[in-house]
Amino acid sequence: MPRSTTHRVDIAFGDCDPAGIVFFPNFLRWMDTASLSFFMQCGVPPWRELVKTRGIVGTPLLEINTKFHKAATYGETLTITTHVEEWRSKVIVQLHRVTRAGKDGAAEDLICEGREVRAFVKRDDHDPDRLRAIPVPEDIRALCA
Amino acid sequence: MPRSTTHRVDIAFGDCDPAGIVFFPNFLRWMDTASLSFFMQCGVPPWRELVKTRGIVGTPLLEINTKFHKAATYGETLTITTHVEEWRSKVIVQLHRVTRAGKDGAAEDLICEGREVRAFVKRDDHDPDRLRAIPVPEDIRALCA
Amino acid sequence: MPRSTTHRVDIAFGDCDPAGIVFFPNFLRWMDTASLSFFMQCGVPPWRELVKTRGIVGTPLLEINTKFHKAATYGETLTITTHVEEWRSKVIVQLHRVTRAGKDGAAEDLICEGREVRAFVKRDDHDPDRLRAIPVPEDIRALCA
Amino acid sequence: MPRSTTHRVDIAFGDCDPAGIVFFPNFLRWMDTASLSFFMQCGVPPWRELVKTRGIVGTPLLEINTKFHKAATYGETLTITTHVEEWRSKVIVQLHRVTRAGKDGAAEDLICEGREVRAFVKRDDHDPDRLRAIPVPEDIRALCA
Repeated sequence: MPRSTTHRVDIAFGDCDPAGIVFFPNFLRWMDTASLSFFMQCGVPPWRELVKTRGIVGTPLLEINTKFHKAATYGETLTITTHVEEWRSKVIVQLHRVTRAGKDGAAEDLICEGREVRAFVKRDDHDPDRLRAIPVPEDIRALCA
Repeated sequence: MPRSTTHRVDIAFGDCDPAGIVFFPNFLRWMDTASLSFFMQCGVPPWRELVKTRGIVGTPLLEINTKFHKAATYGETLTITTHVEEWRSKVIVQLHRVTRAGKDGAAEDLICEGREVRAFVKRDDHDPDRLRAIPVPEDIRALCA
Repeated sequence: MPRSTTHRVDIAFGDCDPAGIVFFPNFLRWMDTASLSFFMQCGVPPWRELVKTRGIVGTPLLEINTKFHKAATYGETLTITTHVEEWRSKVIVQLHRVTRAGKDGAAEDLICEGREVRAFVKRDDHDPDRLRAIPVPEDIRALCA
Repeated sequence: MPRSTTHRVDIAFGDCDPAGIVFFPNFLRWMDTASLSFFMQCGVPPWRELVKTRGIVGTPLLEINTKFHKAATYGETLTITTHVEEWRSKVIVQLHRVTRAGKDGAAEDLICEGREVRAFVKRDDHDPDRLRAIPVPEDIRALCA
């Protein structure tokens, strides 16, 4: 079983749109937070530190595929369960499952799922405005697998 | 050739994250705006009107697959080109291509692409808190295809 | 002593801007959540219910004055302490104090403060697109003062 | 007459909340963009350049006072008119007036107003995580007054 972490989200009024449901880019915002939270819960230092010690700026997304199953609204609480499904040489595939506790003891509701492909990046030596993917650091993999 | 529309985005400072590049959920926010803009440029009334005249609340997403090719930052201008790739009985597949004009006459940069599956929805007759997918309205298809 | 509630915020990477600090409109977003959380912690039903039972849509802002004292960044946790400073006939003045726990036992840091003027509103009987301020409901005041 | 610039905003569906109107922190987000746009329209280089050439990271807010007069909703277009009301030694007071064109030739609607106090900041020499206010640069004032 790969290592898995959870991240809690309390949906705010302002996260919802005129249809009264969560405006979907917020789910991706929360998945991004869950992604970072995964690394930090696994013991990886914040990027703010890693950029100083090792030049690692973060793990920008290369791809995200998201499926929406049910709507959610403000006042509700979501749980995002995150793990790394695949470790490739230069990218990782991270999976987020967003659920809401069932009412009155019912099974939980699956709200949406996101499958992310992310790379670890540094700033380019010659052009610091460019970001370059690096091989997945072995020590980070050891902490998170 | 299917009907295609464009939507312009000027990237703001606050759209960017500590890595200095667009925080990715903003791309999906802009694609959502491009999706609505597509319908309005095709002559479909705003949902605010359609909810009154026909009960149609909007076109919530069922799925979005997004690929990120290059980073973008504040001060830059993006163009989102949108069309409907596929009209199924109950869903549509809408494609967004986000580009940045090339510098000094160079070809444009492809920043990211999003493929959305959307349904048209109404509120449920018995439980107005629930949204239900309806068949793709033929008159809207006629305006947008 | 007026009734006071607290609301916790964990700052996310995407809440911060290219200067590496919280993009300030997010503080106002969190104050809005703290405002609603205040009412709910005091026992006021969610607007989603109140709009059905009494037509009350929410408490839109008339004015907000915000002072920023220190920057905050991702990975940090904030506490927003909220109370109603003044109950007038048609508006309330709500105060939010945003603090960060001090490091190593030091006193807490005051990050920012917001003073909001809010009204309770209903939709206009004749034009449901218009919102109209109503007198502050006595029962809500009784719960929150 | 001080120099004044304008910035256009097309309100998106996702900028609005379940009450169907603009979620107010978005107004402050747009004022922030208008603030930066003011400097750039006046000929000040982007902070991304100024941080390299002169260490100036940006103009974080010290204070913002905002009054909301009318609601606005998606599909509408706003104009933000910006100028610097006051140049002090270490801070500036910037004023944003957000209006919507009147319908059928009527006078424009004043939607909201924001009065911002901003400082120019650099990173601290000894602790680059700290930002320090500097005297308002004379050349920037000359461009913008």
